[in-house]
Amino acid sequence: MLTSVDAHTSQVDDFAVLFDRALHDFLSTRHDHAPELADELRGMVLAGGKRIRPTFAWWGWRAAGGAHRADAVVRALVALELLQCCALVHDDVMDRSPTRRGRPSVHEVYAARHRRERWAGSARQYGDSAAVLVGDLALAWADDALVTAGLPADALLRAWEAWQAMRTEMIVGQHLDLLAVARRDESLEHAIRVAALKTAAYTVERPLHLGAALAGACPEVVECLREFGHDIGVAFQLRDDLIGAFGDSAVTGKPVAEDIREGKRTPLMAIALSRAQDRPAALRLLRRCLDGGPVSVDEVLAVLVELGAVAAVEEHIELLAASGLAALERAVIEDDARRALVRLANRAVTRTT
Amino acid sequence: MLTSVDAHTSQVDDFAVLFDRALHDFLSTRHDHAPELADELRGMVLAGGKRIRPTFAWWGWRAAGGAHRADAVVRALVALELLQCCALVHDDVMDRSPTRRGRPSVHEVYAARHRRERWAGSARQYGDSAAVLVGDLALAWADDALVTAGLPADALLRAWEAWQAMRTEMIVGQHLDLLAVARRDESLEHAIRVAALKTAAYTVERPLHLGAALAGACPEVVECLREFGHDIGVAFQLRDDLIGAFGDSAVTGKPVAEDIREGKRTPLMAIALSRAQDRPAALRLLRRCLDGGPVSVDEVLAVLVELGAVAAVEEHIELLAASGLAALERAVIEDDARRALVRLANRAVTRTT
Repeated sequence: MLTSVDAHTSQVDDFAVLFDRALHDFLSTRHDHAPELADELRGMVLAGGKRIRPTFAWWGWRAAGGAHRADAVVRALVALELLQCCALVHDDVMDRSPTRRGRPSVHEVYAARHRRERWAGSARQYGDSAAVLVGDLALAWADDALVTAGLPADALLRAWEAWQAMRTEMIVGQHLDLLAVARRDESLEHAIRVAALKTAAYTVERPLHLGAALAGACPEVVECLREFGHDIGVAFQLRDDLIGAFGDSAVTGKPVAEDIREGKRTPLMAIALSRAQDRPAALRLLRRCLDGGPVSVDEVLAVLVELGAVAAVEEHIELLAASGLAALERAVIEDDARRALVRLANRAVTRTT
Repeated sequence: MLTSVDAHTSQVDDFAVLFDRALHDFLSTRHDHAPELADELRGMVLAGGKRIRPTFAWWGWRAAGGAHRADAVVRALVALELLQCCALVHDDVMDRSPTRRGRPSVHEVYAARHRRERWAGSARQYGDSAAVLVGDLALAWADDALVTAGLPADALLRAWEAWQAMRTEMIVGQHLDLLAVARRDESLEHAIRVAALKTAAYTVERPLHLGAALAGACPEVVECLREFGHDIGVAFQLRDDLIGAFGDSAVTGKPVAEDIREGKRTPLMAIALSRAQDRPAALRLLRRCLDGGPVSVDEVLAVLVELGAVAAVEEHIELLAASGLAALERAVIEDDARRALVRLANRAVTRTT
């Protein structure tokens, strides 16, 4: 018999359940307007994902005094998951990633269908085009979810400030990422700037901002939450980079050491590169890796550890987590939300998937 | 000395001037948030375009009794031009079109820059990726323009119904277009369905709907305007197909007979194909054209005329224009707006560019 319930965990789970229901509902009512594209959109959105952005936004809302039951807010946060769907689908086209969340990526699904049906023209071009359209649909529907959630008009307009910044930052961050590869910009500074835009702002800071704005938070609370979000967000990305290099593909659902094989310009690589300046063999190996030459993944991973780059990143994560939590400590917010945010922050920076 | 002014023309021009100012203003305030992408977005938006969608929306607004001066409405309609920018930029990536409005298309601009700067990786992939992001930015900013225009909350929500339908229909129409090519669907029915979604709904019907909704039009007025918009919109697309085959490239800014050289599945081609069933030589030529084989453009054009396909399309345009104008006649709307819409309809179906 269940005699004791962790009230806090049950609240988090409440949100997860309510949120998934809202996501299903939105997609069901929309499906028939665009069946050929909505199937893949739905497959992608419902295939998993940790609902990180809606969850941070929810606790931003609760932190600023938003009610425990708020159906319109839950419906509004569906927007964040749809935006993320757009980001992932377009990202996979740009990076030519064959898989996502352990399934073929959207452009691969459409290309495979083209080949299977022996359609005319290039399967790759059709796959890419259809995926661009799925992403466009997700982006348009994201805005629809927010606007038609049934929020009070003033709450919608307050939230829009965070929402518009979030979308622009996500897109600009993505472009800076492309530019870094094109320009062979391997500086730590640039890598951190991309992480700040692509992940910190987009994944943690702006969702918190959006949630707090919905609840009509005062500027001081928004400020503290954003500061917390920025630090935890960058730490989140640094953890992501470690997982992208050392993660267990059975757990992550991504190919083994994908970042290494793609020569991705991460802060981890930037630190390693600067530490390898007087280590010619290590430097050659890292250079070959970044230039897309053939390398032994195991050797690269060993060098990253040996140079102390992994330890430096871990240290940096710890520092960011501490300063983020200090900013949260200063915020005048609801206690249960503070506890939830501390828990989310710890999970974000220590996770393995 | 100017002694007489056509009041009606001056009103249309008023809107054009006010609209272009609103477009400039919006892009100026946004530029610094995304300079690398906003430059091309701005170049594309300001390089021309006939502002057809905002103009129809404006007259939908005026038809339903909206005020002659309405700054928030003008600002809101910037959304339609930004959405069109997304559609064109992504379209050009999908179709691999090298030019647009007489300039290199956006993906070509970025690819050329990549080559010029001797950046790493594939210039084509960088160009396509950057163009996808420019389109995403245009789509996100379109929604921002509408939401932040300063409309009353109820007007915004009324307009959103038309806006969300318009975006989804545009994206679905684009996908049907890709599917038709892939599946070699050459039926007139399919070609008309694509025209109804991609152009009629997106270019005329929904903009009118949106404008009328902003002004709080009753369902009967919305119904008549949409019927008018649908017929004029399909006629507009049929005219576009004739221009795409026979247009003067010096006037259109597009390559000569682009649609023919691309083997595009237009209603014009569908009609020609069905009329060529007992004309083996003509049929072979059209088949080669649709299958992307080498053909003499002049021969194809001659066959289209000879088969009577061009005359049939002209006739169809005339019928649609007549039925559209009849629907408009039934609508209980403002007289000056009716006159403007008649004029816009005539221009849309008889234009040469």
